[in-house]
Amino acid sequence: MTQHLATRPLMVAAARREPVTRAPVWIMRQAGRYLPEYRAIREKHGFMEMCKTPELAAEVSHQPIERLGVDAAIIFSDILIPLEAMGLPVEFTEKGPKLAQPIRSVADVVGLRIPEPAEDMPFVAEAIRILGQRLAGKVPIIGFSGAPFTLASYAVDGGGSKDYAQSKKLMVTEPKAFGLLLDKLAETIARSLEAQVKAGASLVQIFDSWGGVLSESAYREFALPATRKAVEMTRTRTGVPIIYYLGGGPHLLTPSVRTGADVLSVDWRLDLGKVLDRHGKKVAVQGNLDPTLLYADPARIRAEVAKIRASVAGRPGHIWNLGHGILPDIPVEHARAFVEAARGD
Amino acid sequence: MTQHLATRPLMVAAARREPVTRAPVWIMRQAGRYLPEYRAIREKHGFMEMCKTPELAAEVSHQPIERLGVDAAIIFSDILIPLEAMGLPVEFTEKGPKLAQPIRSVADVVGLRIPEPAEDMPFVAEAIRILGQRLAGKVPIIGFSGAPFTLASYAVDGGGSKDYAQSKKLMVTEPKAFGLLLDKLAETIARSLEAQVKAGASLVQIFDSWGGVLSESAYREFALPATRKAVEMTRTRTGVPIIYYLGGGPHLLTPSVRTGADVLSVDWRLDLGKVLDRHGKKVAVQGNLDPTLLYADPARIRAEVAKIRASVAGRPGHIWNLGHGILPDIPVEHARAFVEAARGD
Repeated sequence: MTQHLATRPLMVAAARREPVTRAPVWIMRQAGRYLPEYRAIREKHGFMEMCKTPELAAEVSHQPIERLGVDAAIIFSDILIPLEAMGLPVEFTEKGPKLAQPIRSVADVVGLRIPEPAEDMPFVAEAIRILGQRLAGKVPIIGFSGAPFTLASYAVDGGGSKDYAQSKKLMVTEPKAFGLLLDKLAETIARSLEAQVKAGASLVQIFDSWGGVLSESAYREFALPATRKAVEMTRTRTGVPIIYYLGGGPHLLTPSVRTGADVLSVDWRLDLGKVLDRHGKKVAVQGNLDPTLLYADPARIRAEVAKIRASVAGRPGHIWNLGHGILPDIPVEHARAFVEAARGD
Repeated sequence: MTQHLATRPLMVAAARREPVTRAPVWIMRQAGRYLPEYRAIREKHGFMEMCKTPELAAEVSHQPIERLGVDAAIIFSDILIPLEAMGLPVEFTEKGPKLAQPIRSVADVVGLRIPEPAEDMPFVAEAIRILGQRLAGKVPIIGFSGAPFTLASYAVDGGGSKDYAQSKKLMVTEPKAFGLLLDKLAETIARSLEAQVKAGASLVQIFDSWGGVLSESAYREFALPATRKAVEMTRTRTGVPIIYYLGGGPHLLTPSVRTGADVLSVDWRLDLGKVLDRHGKKVAVQGNLDPTLLYADPARIRAEVAKIRASVAGRPGHIWNLGHGILPDIPVEHARAFVEAARGD
């Protein structure tokens, strides 16, 4: 890590709550469909093919860097890759990849293997290595994984869901099986993130996109211990800053601090200034413009960025981002307007 | 209203925060697929056919009363009925009814008519009259409608959605058109609820199932004024207690009190005792067991009910319910266990 000290990236410094010249900015799903150059590649290749072809994954990860002027590159991959590596076949539907044989029983959980990233998903690390060569230190790379609960709900419900009824049913009726599933996922996540850091990622983000569907007690009983375990193992093995994204979870702010993550990434349901008031001595914050506000014209986007800036009020430990992934029909110039306003250009 | 004074139903008294012998209980979607006798009717009739055939709607509304021992009957209907009456055609898909021609422009909004319930959806009032005859005063009837924002998001996104991107896009890019849509919906809702009360409903519930996707500022700017307008008009025209259900909105608790509703119905993301601590002098509360906890065995269900009871601690102004609609694969005996535990049987 010592080579970072001289030229510590803004992203790493902000994640550590160190003073920075300006708060860094990146966008969740910045390597994505709103970019014409992404769509040009996507037209010729399947989504999972892109995830599994390191040259292509590195290429689309690199696309938004110059185009938007962001301070980090997140590796292009899919949240289902580690589940597939655990032995859950992924099928392709019009709405994207889904799991063909969801987990529904104790036996299903017991049958899951904990993957070896170098053997079972080597293309992720390889994509990061290629991306690192292209970036040549310009901006750091963010590795990522789903969080234990979110991956478990994908594994059980088979994909996105309205109410995650099957996941919660397993949690309620077979709590030990659900706990074992979370435990296996925590180890899988730590191994995946370790491999990504070894390949060149300078930070990692753990996405708990669906964690907010839990009550506080269910979160504390199931999601939190498994996430904390994943965070602790990742920290021990890598030493890089860990960002924890929790979607739709304004009621889970206090327990989410206990995951041990360095940065909490929250959505538009929370006020960043209030999060810093309450927890700014323990964590940095990332966020949090509602992605649909990027439909607005650039003047309105700048005004919304100014509101968040006023709320944060120059305190250290802020990374600009949206509250969720950028939507596919956002004009590129609106994404640029957000980045420029966040940078203070 | 005077005839109620002697035999004021528990539901009405609790909604008014008056002392009651026990807190009343009912279940959102209690007239639904988890009941075999409902499925027997549904096998022979289409969903919208059931909504529009007063005898059938009254029959399925009546089914859970004796079977579960609940303290109110909610009329069986669909949230899209008033939208259809405004001129938006409803189509049928495997996943339920959807809007064939969603609202996408100012012109679309201007073209919407405000329906006359007696002419455009007379079957709702007729179903309530038939249900009233069958119930003969045993329990009161709850009328219902979607809330302005939730109906607007159905109208614009055409059905349920993951991120309500189209609705929020219209809100962001055409705020006046979106405001006009909400305004027309507020009047439509008030007319619909007035007709339901005239037909025999003793309370009404306004469902803001999707309101929780809004930031607090967007909620205050759009959803709140329109909901308050619907509440005020309904109160002036009917005088019955008004329940406001807000799903996924723990961050919107304080502004939701400003709707003026008598009862806030909240989900498992909030602690009922804390809601009463903060707002119990202004509103009653309804809720809030996570519906997936009804997958658990009756002993666990009783334990979860006991936790909510301890949180409420005997304060007036509590109506038992789930935090969202009952799921279709819940065993009837589990629903009964919830009702019995809530009643204190």
